[in-house]
Amino acid sequence: MNKNQRIRVAQWGLGAMGQGVAKVILAKQGLELVGAFDIRPELAGKDVGEVLGVELAGVVVSDDPASILDPAKVDVITIATTSWVAKQLPDLKRIISAGINVVSIAEEMAAPEAQNPEIAAELDALAKKHGVSAIGVGVNPGFVLDHLVVVLTAGSQEVTSIEASRINDLSPYGETVLSTQGVGTTPEEFRAGVADGSIVGHVGFPESVRLISDALGLGVDRVEQTLEPIIAKVPRQARGQVIEPGRVAGCNHIAAGYSGGEQVIRLVHPQQVDPGAEGVDTGDYITIHGVPEISMSTGPEIAGGKATAGIAVNTIPRIFAATPGLKRIIDLPSPTALMGPEAYERR
Amino acid sequence: MNKNQRIRVAQWGLGAMGQGVAKVILAKQGLELVGAFDIRPELAGKDVGEVLGVELAGVVVSDDPASILDPAKVDVITIATTSWVAKQLPDLKRIISAGINVVSIAEEMAAPEAQNPEIAAELDALAKKHGVSAIGVGVNPGFVLDHLVVVLTAGSQEVTSIEASRINDLSPYGETVLSTQGVGTTPEEFRAGVADGSIVGHVGFPESVRLISDALGLGVDRVEQTLEPIIAKVPRQARGQVIEPGRVAGCNHIAAGYSGGEQVIRLVHPQQVDPGAEGVDTGDYITIHGVPEISMSTGPEIAGGKATAGIAVNTIPRIFAATPGLKRIIDLPSPTALMGPEAYERR
Repeated sequence: MNKNQRIRVAQWGLGAMGQGVAKVILAKQGLELVGAFDIRPELAGKDVGEVLGVELAGVVVSDDPASILDPAKVDVITIATTSWVAKQLPDLKRIISAGINVVSIAEEMAAPEAQNPEIAAELDALAKKHGVSAIGVGVNPGFVLDHLVVVLTAGSQEVTSIEASRINDLSPYGETVLSTQGVGTTPEEFRAGVADGSIVGHVGFPESVRLISDALGLGVDRVEQTLEPIIAKVPRQARGQVIEPGRVAGCNHIAAGYSGGEQVIRLVHPQQVDPGAEGVDTGDYITIHGVPEISMSTGPEIAGGKATAGIAVNTIPRIFAATPGLKRIIDLPSPTALMGPEAYERR
Repeated sequence: MNKNQRIRVAQWGLGAMGQGVAKVILAKQGLELVGAFDIRPELAGKDVGEVLGVELAGVVVSDDPASILDPAKVDVITIATTSWVAKQLPDLKRIISAGINVVSIAEEMAAPEAQNPEIAAELDALAKKHGVSAIGVGVNPGFVLDHLVVVLTAGSQEVTSIEASRINDLSPYGETVLSTQGVGTTPEEFRAGVADGSIVGHVGFPESVRLISDALGLGVDRVEQTLEPIIAKVPRQARGQVIEPGRVAGCNHIAAGYSGGEQVIRLVHPQQVDPGAEGVDTGDYITIHGVPEISMSTGPEIAGGKATAGIAVNTIPRIFAATPGLKRIIDLPSPTALMGPEAYERR
């Protein structure tokens, strides 16, 4: 495409994450924010810049999705509404059927065939029928514990197994996030919460395992997940509240991928408040056993909220240029930071 | 492609690196080694397995390149002959004109437009004319100090500058490699060697800078390189010889990429023998200044010889499936370890 021609993007959903995505779109020279939709009527009619707390953008938020579903005016929709593909499916079908490409940050959309194969097949067929493409990305799944793992094997002659972990600090997050990780509960309440589904841990492990297995050909045929309470040994701080010793500071969520009975992928994501109180450093850690052996770490962890908004926006030129159908991050050239019009010329 | 259909590959050049590539090809279920060419007549007529020191492969080495230039029998040629595109150009043209895809490990082929724009344009046009694709890859350039940097920005909202370094140990290498890094010289001899071109440092920095700049749109318009001697402070061991204090233990090669006068990329590659003698750990280090800040390290460094052979082979299915023309690693889905037929089904 011409470097003076901007990709026209509309934002679907202006919650915390959707607002983050919209702000990044507004900051990019190669992208033009042309619309925004949110179900909350109190946002309708406001300039999107006002909602975002930035300068006026000349784009009015609508509470009618039809306002952004015109393929003559919108090239790509970025959608931030839920973690679950079954819940997002009606919206995705509406966008795709309108003939508009879509980037979702729903965790399960990173590889919907992992847990929702019928939905994945339906979306793929629908996208091909309407000549558009759809993808799910985010910091995780969609980047740190899968795409980055896969790229680190670019020079590997042999891979026998993979271990990766992501240690982060939930302290900056709100009550909703803390409660889904069981923060502040007793160990008994934690186990009851896991059993009744109110404590979910990380969403997206089966998807990450699938991305790695498919990219490398590891043939994973079974994924097992466990959620264990991380019990505070010392008082831990979390947005004004203190988690006392003996209480749950977070959830250690582990996923293991097996191929023919052998564990070949192990992903670990302990999400907790204030790990520093017990001397635990945050970071991302990837070990690839094989030829060569590879051991990588980041410190601190790649910031999740920022990177999710970033990768959603950086994927826009990729999905705009992609062949029709449902895509995964491993199917396309890697998204990269978009820092100038030169970044578009090449794509 | 069908998972039972193997990609037919021929190896051009059976030096140390070419032998490494051929061994990996032989080990992959999805690839079939169907030919091998080397200019040395003493290898001609031998089974390639005998040359590689592995079991017989049923493939005879030829000293006539025409033996592997039949597109009815060969899908991809992997070529390992030199670091320089101008020197490899006649061979690349012959392969492409025969209608065969090519993966080169010549450092300058990772982004030939960086220093050889006319050659890059010629190869691109020739590949398009003959309906095949060509690419250059290797551990560096082509992976650690460029592709991996680019992928780490997948979630970046903003990148202001990039610093990356690769600290390795040359002790296992032979005399040729050590001499091109000035190992064992006096500081005066080192400077004279840099001036007369006998000490070259790392080959491929302008190419790595170009890959990063193009992928991110950083607009680098000037690359400056410096080569400084690493002077031993304590005795260092290198394959039986000892580098005494005051002598040169290696070459610290630095490349800086500027955009409008501002340094936006800094790549550092100190290549030396026995860095551990002075407490220096080997490893790869990437810092991305921006939003978010990212700091990554590997320890030890991703093994260069193994990863170069690995990435050359892992790129074969990518270049086989690519649209015609000259490609760079940033233009394709990342190569990844090939561990089973599933890895081919998807491509």
